[in-house]
Amino acid sequence: MARESKGSLMTVRDDVRVLDATLRDGGLVNNFYFDDDFVKALYAMNVAAGVDYMEFGYKASKDIFDPDRFGKWKFSSDDDIREIVGENNTDLKIAVMADVGRTNFKRDILEKKDSPIDMIRVATYINTLPAATEMIEDAKKKGYEATVNVMAVSKVGREDLNHGLEILAQSNVDVIYLVDSFGAFYPEQIHRLMDDYLEIGAKFNKSIGIHAHNNQQLAFANTIESLRLGASYLDATVCGMGRGAGNCFLESLLSFLKNPKYNMIPLMKFIEKYMVELRKKEKWGFDLPYLLTGVLNSHPSAAIKFIGEDRTDYSQFYQDILDDIG
Amino acid sequence: MARESKGSLMTVRDDVRVLDATLRDGGLVNNFYFDDDFVKALYAMNVAAGVDYMEFGYKASKDIFDPDRFGKWKFSSDDDIREIVGENNTDLKIAVMADVGRTNFKRDILEKKDSPIDMIRVATYINTLPAATEMIEDAKKKGYEATVNVMAVSKVGREDLNHGLEILAQSNVDVIYLVDSFGAFYPEQIHRLMDDYLEIGAKFNKSIGIHAHNNQQLAFANTIESLRLGASYLDATVCGMGRGAGNCFLESLLSFLKNPKYNMIPLMKFIEKYMVELRKKEKWGFDLPYLLTGVLNSHPSAAIKFIGEDRTDYSQFYQDILDDIG
Repeated sequence: MARESKGSLMTVRDDVRVLDATLRDGGLVNNFYFDDDFVKALYAMNVAAGVDYMEFGYKASKDIFDPDRFGKWKFSSDDDIREIVGENNTDLKIAVMADVGRTNFKRDILEKKDSPIDMIRVATYINTLPAATEMIEDAKKKGYEATVNVMAVSKVGREDLNHGLEILAQSNVDVIYLVDSFGAFYPEQIHRLMDDYLEIGAKFNKSIGIHAHNNQQLAFANTIESLRLGASYLDATVCGMGRGAGNCFLESLLSFLKNPKYNMIPLMKFIEKYMVELRKKEKWGFDLPYLLTGVLNSHPSAAIKFIGEDRTDYSQFYQDILDDIG
Repeated sequence: MARESKGSLMTVRDDVRVLDATLRDGGLVNNFYFDDDFVKALYAMNVAAGVDYMEFGYKASKDIFDPDRFGKWKFSSDDDIREIVGENNTDLKIAVMADVGRTNFKRDILEKKDSPIDMIRVATYINTLPAATEMIEDAKKKGYEATVNVMAVSKVGREDLNHGLEILAQSNVDVIYLVDSFGAFYPEQIHRLMDDYLEIGAKFNKSIGIHAHNNQQLAFANTIESLRLGASYLDATVCGMGRGAGNCFLESLLSFLKNPKYNMIPLMKFIEKYMVELRKKEKWGFDLPYLLTGVLNSHPSAAIKFIGEDRTDYSQFYQDILDDIG
């Protein structure tokens, strides 16, 4: 635990970028069925709040996913994005996520000059890094910023992970994200991992990002621990909306950062007007079953199902997931 | 940030003690109106789960507080405790909290040999340390373990605080608690404070405790950061039940600790049977207004009132508390 803090609690770091992932990770809660009024207001909020990036959703392939079974932000066509942002003459940049194996990137990701999108976020598991690298290079060649989110690294050994990160760092990617998919990590584990990510980032001149989940109510703590150590791309969502236990709350993050360009008031007004109602309809956020899957380093799907069925027999659930991982 | 970790994520530390504060801090939610069935089940759960201490409530004076306006655990008479625990022939120790200025300790705290209580927790502000010391010495002389909880230290300068801690450390107190009353501290601030508490603790041979609040969803993170650095008395409550945003979740803490004496199953069964219903009747836990009072280092009372009135005009609330502290 020797890494020095980068900056202090009082300083502004010019390298910090906040990314609002509400539509994308929150879309996993409601199958991406956000209405346009909500999305336009979210966009306007992000512009007014000084957020750096807004992620619109996945660039999933309609050959693989049935458009009748998902809202439009599962696919995030350039036309649908333009419908919201026009020419986006603002300081807010637009991101989308492209999953390895689920995106027809050659067809669906256009040349940057013809697109409202600024950043392609490539999501991959450790075993599909060559395909991820291909997507990164395609995005960079088309003129985009590119990030790579290596998911589920709590299931990967340190040696394999660092080998994979070195491979990615040799691509033209701009940002490498540490992703705590299962909300399994404690801050001191995040610290050790960040040491590795930041060391590789420094060696290859890449920025490092953090995408945390709130299974153990540690998403914010893990995000600011990463920030303190030197991570600069920080994912958050409004009211922590995201799959299962959700994410780092954008409210928490903006209230923490000292850069005066960030403004909590538009965010609070957006929550008043839109999120209070949405929270009555959709379910996400910390709950005991998510704690249990987090502690056991398991995918939250079993917990999502358990909660969706309004079950509260937690001790039985615990036995069931122990059996599953046993 | 130079202090080494005491133990690792995998080790068992014999100095660690978990204290369940559900009745006491949770009592601030429901004015201490827990029925006996609940309290007996909570006691049995704590015994079965291997929890080290159970705090029953305040030893408030009936000369000051009207017994008709509070449940019995505001006063925690020895008879009422004995009604629950009998002779308490278990490994679980019994604690009560005694507020400076609100407890007739000479009358209401009996000799230890005549009492089911094991530990007196003296709660004080920095400006009432001499009275706190008097209560500590009274408790020690009567045969109890004694802790001191210095509240609202986020309002106290470092020099004054450390001077106060040195005074307390020269008493016969066993444990000095760092209390984040307003949920105002980030883990790196807890780290700096813990450095001071632990240094004074080492000098005077006192154990150090942590009592965290969840205004910023950092109660668990701040608790395990304190533990990592060397704190050994850890407060938590079932489902985080406590005033306003509540406390560190006992579920999180027991799942984190590696000592096999702690057992999550009785805790999960207790939550199934008692807390699911209680959560429908009583309101506590993280919410945006608590984040705001935490960030602004303010007492949560305004947020409790706001939420109690079912208001959601968060931006107006923010302006109002800015005016209050301005």
